[in-house]
Amino acid sequence: MPAVAPSPACAAPSRDVGAELHALVAELVPLRRCITGDGLRQTLLALGERVPLRITEVPTGTPVLDWTVPQEWRVRQAYLARADGTRVVDWAGSPLHLVQYSVAVRDRMPLRALRAHLHTLPDQPSLVPYRTSYYAPTWGFCMSQHALDALAAEIGESGEVEIVIDAEHVEGSLTYGEVVIPGETDDEILLSAHACHPALANDNASSLAVATVLARRLLDGPRLRHTVRVLFAPGTIGAIAWLDRNRADLGRIRHGLVLANLGDAGGFTYKQTRRGTLDAPLPIDRAVALAMRDLGWALDVRPFAPTGYDERQFASPGFDLPVGRLTRTPHGEYPEYHTSADDLDLVRPASLAASLDALWAIVMALDGDGRYRNTQPYGEPQLGRRGLYASLDGPAAQQAALWVLNLSDGKHSLLDVAERSGLPVATVRAAADRLEEAGLLVPTDR
Amino acid sequence: MPAVAPSPACAAPSRDVGAELHALVAELVPLRRCITGDGLRQTLLALGERVPLRITEVPTGTPVLDWTVPQEWRVRQAYLARADGTRVVDWAGSPLHLVQYSVAVRDRMPLRALRAHLHTLPDQPSLVPYRTSYYAPTWGFCMSQHALDALAAEIGESGEVEIVIDAEHVEGSLTYGEVVIPGETDDEILLSAHACHPALANDNASSLAVATVLARRLLDGPRLRHTVRVLFAPGTIGAIAWLDRNRADLGRIRHGLVLANLGDAGGFTYKQTRRGTLDAPLPIDRAVALAMRDLGWALDVRPFAPTGYDERQFASPGFDLPVGRLTRTPHGEYPEYHTSADDLDLVRPASLAASLDALWAIVMALDGDGRYRNTQPYGEPQLGRRGLYASLDGPAAQQAALWVLNLSDGKHSLLDVAERSGLPVATVRAAADRLEEAGLLVPTDR
Amino acid sequence: MPAVAPSPACAAPSRDVGAELHALVAELVPLRRCITGDGLRQTLLALGERVPLRITEVPTGTPVLDWTVPQEWRVRQAYLARADGTRVVDWAGSPLHLVQYSVAVRDRMPLRALRAHLHTLPDQPSLVPYRTSYYAPTWGFCMSQHALDALAAEIGESGEVEIVIDAEHVEGSLTYGEVVIPGETDDEILLSAHACHPALANDNASSLAVATVLARRLLDGPRLRHTVRVLFAPGTIGAIAWLDRNRADLGRIRHGLVLANLGDAGGFTYKQTRRGTLDAPLPIDRAVALAMRDLGWALDVRPFAPTGYDERQFASPGFDLPVGRLTRTPHGEYPEYHTSADDLDLVRPASLAASLDALWAIVMALDGDGRYRNTQPYGEPQLGRRGLYASLDGPAAQQAALWVLNLSDGKHSLLDVAERSGLPVATVRAAADRLEEAGLLVPTDR
Repeated sequence: MPAVAPSPACAAPSRDVGAELHALVAELVPLRRCITGDGLRQTLLALGERVPLRITEVPTGTPVLDWTVPQEWRVRQAYLARADGTRVVDWAGSPLHLVQYSVAVRDRMPLRALRAHLHTLPDQPSLVPYRTSYYAPTWGFCMSQHALDALAAEIGESGEVEIVIDAEHVEGSLTYGEVVIPGETDDEILLSAHACHPALANDNASSLAVATVLARRLLDGPRLRHTVRVLFAPGTIGAIAWLDRNRADLGRIRHGLVLANLGDAGGFTYKQTRRGTLDAPLPIDRAVALAMRDLGWALDVRPFAPTGYDERQFASPGFDLPVGRLTRTPHGEYPEYHTSADDLDLVRPASLAASLDALWAIVMALDGDGRYRNTQPYGEPQLGRRGLYASLDGPAAQQAALWVLNLSDGKHSLLDVAERSGLPVATVRAAADRLEEAGLLVPTDR
Repeated sequence: MPAVAPSPACAAPSRDVGAELHALVAELVPLRRCITGDGLRQTLLALGERVPLRITEVPTGTPVLDWTVPQEWRVRQAYLARADGTRVVDWAGSPLHLVQYSVAVRDRMPLRALRAHLHTLPDQPSLVPYRTSYYAPTWGFCMSQHALDALAAEIGESGEVEIVIDAEHVEGSLTYGEVVIPGETDDEILLSAHACHPALANDNASSLAVATVLARRLLDGPRLRHTVRVLFAPGTIGAIAWLDRNRADLGRIRHGLVLANLGDAGGFTYKQTRRGTLDAPLPIDRAVALAMRDLGWALDVRPFAPTGYDERQFASPGFDLPVGRLTRTPHGEYPEYHTSADDLDLVRPASLAASLDALWAIVMALDGDGRYRNTQPYGEPQLGRRGLYASLDGPAAQQAALWVLNLSDGKHSLLDVAERSGLPVATVRAAADRLEEAGLLVPTDR
Repeated sequence: MPAVAPSPACAAPSRDVGAELHALVAELVPLRRCITGDGLRQTLLALGERVPLRITEVPTGTPVLDWTVPQEWRVRQAYLARADGTRVVDWAGSPLHLVQYSVAVRDRMPLRALRAHLHTLPDQPSLVPYRTSYYAPTWGFCMSQHALDALAAEIGESGEVEIVIDAEHVEGSLTYGEVVIPGETDDEILLSAHACHPALANDNASSLAVATVLARRLLDGPRLRHTVRVLFAPGTIGAIAWLDRNRADLGRIRHGLVLANLGDAGGFTYKQTRRGTLDAPLPIDRAVALAMRDLGWALDVRPFAPTGYDERQFASPGFDLPVGRLTRTPHGEYPEYHTSADDLDLVRPASLAASLDALWAIVMALDGDGRYRNTQPYGEPQLGRRGLYASLDGPAAQQAALWVLNLSDGKHSLLDVAERSGLPVATVRAAADRLEEAGLLVPTDR
């Protein structure tokens, strides 16, 4: 028996995981996440009930790459109230009503003056937008256009509004969490999901849930060759802090994915790695495409661009890590994006389950990849004499064996075989296992 | 005068060769070919009447690469008979009725039990399939579904059938034949056709005939730079035996083609070389495409796959020879494939003649290729002063001269010129000859 | 402040230059240009009134590359006359009536015999063709088919025609002119327009005018990094003479364009450089495409071929200069080409102005290109802290900054950024300037 673990592709997750995933999203949505602070910590605690999370706290003021870890933001209460004290919008009802990281205010002003601090969506008048101002000190409230119009009709532009933001920015720390599923080697697959958006379900409670359940299943499954690391960190500054802290170990990252918006009803979209876009597809780029092909799901592939989520940081030219991005509908391309409509209805159990299936297949494709040397490279080896026609069950398995034998010249990998032959990655890997057992293949890269 | 032979493209075969080719196919079809034995030898004898064939016999039991040369199979008689002795199917009528390489049997059993040994084509009920079992000892008969149904109606499932296979597997040898058309150099163009299928006209009597007549014409034509070798060998084991015996000389093979199914009415299909598929088209891949372009014939180009005919062996990773495959309709893609309908009606004189034309053009394109250095590379040389406008007859010839001069920088070949300019290979070669005579070109690769 | 000049793209020429350009074309059309002689000199004098032209005279008989400088051709009068002395066609009316470089004749012959020396366009019966015979001594007249038919109806085939070509070929010189706009470096952008066609407006008075006004504007504009050289020379022999004389300095040419037919109403057509066609697009190939993309104009891109205008000489394999060709409608593809209909009506002020705009944008794209190193390559640098969100005005400028930072790894240029990001070259260059000022970029190639 070879030392390599058997192909675990057969252990793909079942469909009824959709409900489990949706329940976890529902648990995460109410938590008041921000780029630092207790909402973020509560989120990591909730995930830590499912998987062993290693938590890191990076103190306020710590220099991280070109940035500095910001203070924590603590809100006790925040609202707008009419002259009679009745509240127009209240942070207690939804964290979306307050611009994230707003400075403290206790004031009173006519609606006319307040408007400069109000954010609405005139084209989606019933929705509340999500706004932040992390690096420019200011304050503001978010509300629906309908609510604003009603207020204006009620009190007029000269009507006084009371503004209360009982908040403070204090020394503290930035928190991130990691699950590590140890493999046979230090070669690492990095999965990363941003954990800073409050209230929004698809962006990004969906990915926190999917990544957590994936990690749980990987922990419970057979040992892989790769170590898999799942990172939950606040967007931008969290990735930057993590990169700063792990600078010496980044060479271990062989493949990576930023995960976002994994719960909506749209199809999958993949954003290629930086190097894959500039040169030629990397294994992660190819594994995503192959996994989707094998699952029979369409995939919208887009080239790398230095905008978007934390792939921006992973792909900065000094790091240039092989990290792509998997989403269903990308940010900004669904109307509910960054609004109060990014809620539990937008996120579908079946979509969450399919995202989990896809990630599983991607991890298996990457982990099962490898290069081999054909030990009988002159002419075809006689498969029948070795009993291989029996163990290679069916024409696809036999074709896979011929392809693997032909391309096992030390230059081509099993992903190459899967791409060129059109055969499923799992079939190719299984054929390679049979051929290795029969002594016709020797791995050249492990 | 340069040492190179004049472009012989003008000597292309005439059309009336179609009848000659069809007559040769008709002569070959009745011979009872197998992977070894006298039917194969008779086939080579028939070809040897047209061209000087060097015959090689490789004894039974000889290890060849990962395989062993099998015994010869001798059949004296083989039939199925009713209880009254009348014959249901008889090998004497067609070799297709007996599974090739069947072991000896003399038995009697009810139709019900016999069915496990009967092969029909339910979807093509009037045709007899072609079946073999070279490497798993068994026996069987092939017949039309109609004949089987009629028998069942006549005698019922309990009706007794007499089985006679008076055959033996004996020590002997595997036979292959080669024609060599010597060229000015040892650089070799290899053409290979499998010679093991009995009774079938398109697969592969057609290619035996076309390759033989091509060899005859090459022998009678002007000496080429390349040596051309035409190999007639049984499929798989024949190619393997030949590769084993010629291992030391394979480096001479610069270009090669496996030939099959060259007689049906379908268009041409080309399967690329292994390296051409993995890297970039090789000269043989390009010459086939250019020859068809110049002849005005469509070409269906397919990538290499380690399935099919003997290109599997030539392209095994240890050899990785630059051998493509030319067919008209590929195996398995015409309904008559491996059935009794692959007969003399399927094979058309015009198709055979066109296949010969195509092969001629391919060989000439390969042989006429070369790299040159422009001796006046700074600006255009003045062609008029050298009388070249007169010898370069017409705008195509003049354009070809400009292209050859421009690309003759030591990096580009005449095939490059033909591809980039869109001008016929023969026009390009003729222009190069004129320019070489005028001292404006010097060959750099001979 | 960096040493580099500010991006001058904002100084693009205004639209009302169309009238100025058309007036210059109108001034050039009547001059009786040829590959040598006074018409050519008068043309250069006219251009020299707008820009400082350096004139070179290469004496008759001088060997230039594989050619020899021809004699000058001087025509005093040339006509065909009826028996009564009335003129059928007269060179005094249009130089097109006489085959350029015709030898002297004073003779009389019946129309029947004269026909061998008459050139008409039967398919465009009202137009006079343009014909030359520079390298084969002969003579001929050009006229409309209608005029010829009328003559034949009038005098019959036996009618006598008087032929007068009072011309001589004398020792003299070939003339070409150059404007040089000095830049900060010797790296050169070469623009070349042929100056030998008499009477024709689009081919090539249009390009002489556009290139002259472009040179004037470059002389009046801010200093560029590149030196720009504009060459006005007769076709073929002029380019060959210039190449011969400048052989030692050709290494300075970083980018080049042959200019022709820049005044007709058709869209732009670009013919790629030789190396760009054979290998991968060169900066000039890419700059032309980007400039047109940014201007919102369609571009028909064609691969290099060793036919056409003087790109043939610049791209001969010994030189292989990075010179493409920009035209509106290419030669031979508009019905007025090389006929009396290539006149001032064919050439449009708006087309001439757009050609000038395009060339300006191309020169700016080439001159503004460069490679940089991101000084903060680990993660994104914090732009807000450096006040860059203010100076990078708008989302396109900010995206450009992210792209430039991400691709400034020493391998990618600003043209790469413009291509990959889809952002205008000028926006990318401006972002790079801001980032360089902020210390986030350091140029690596100057």
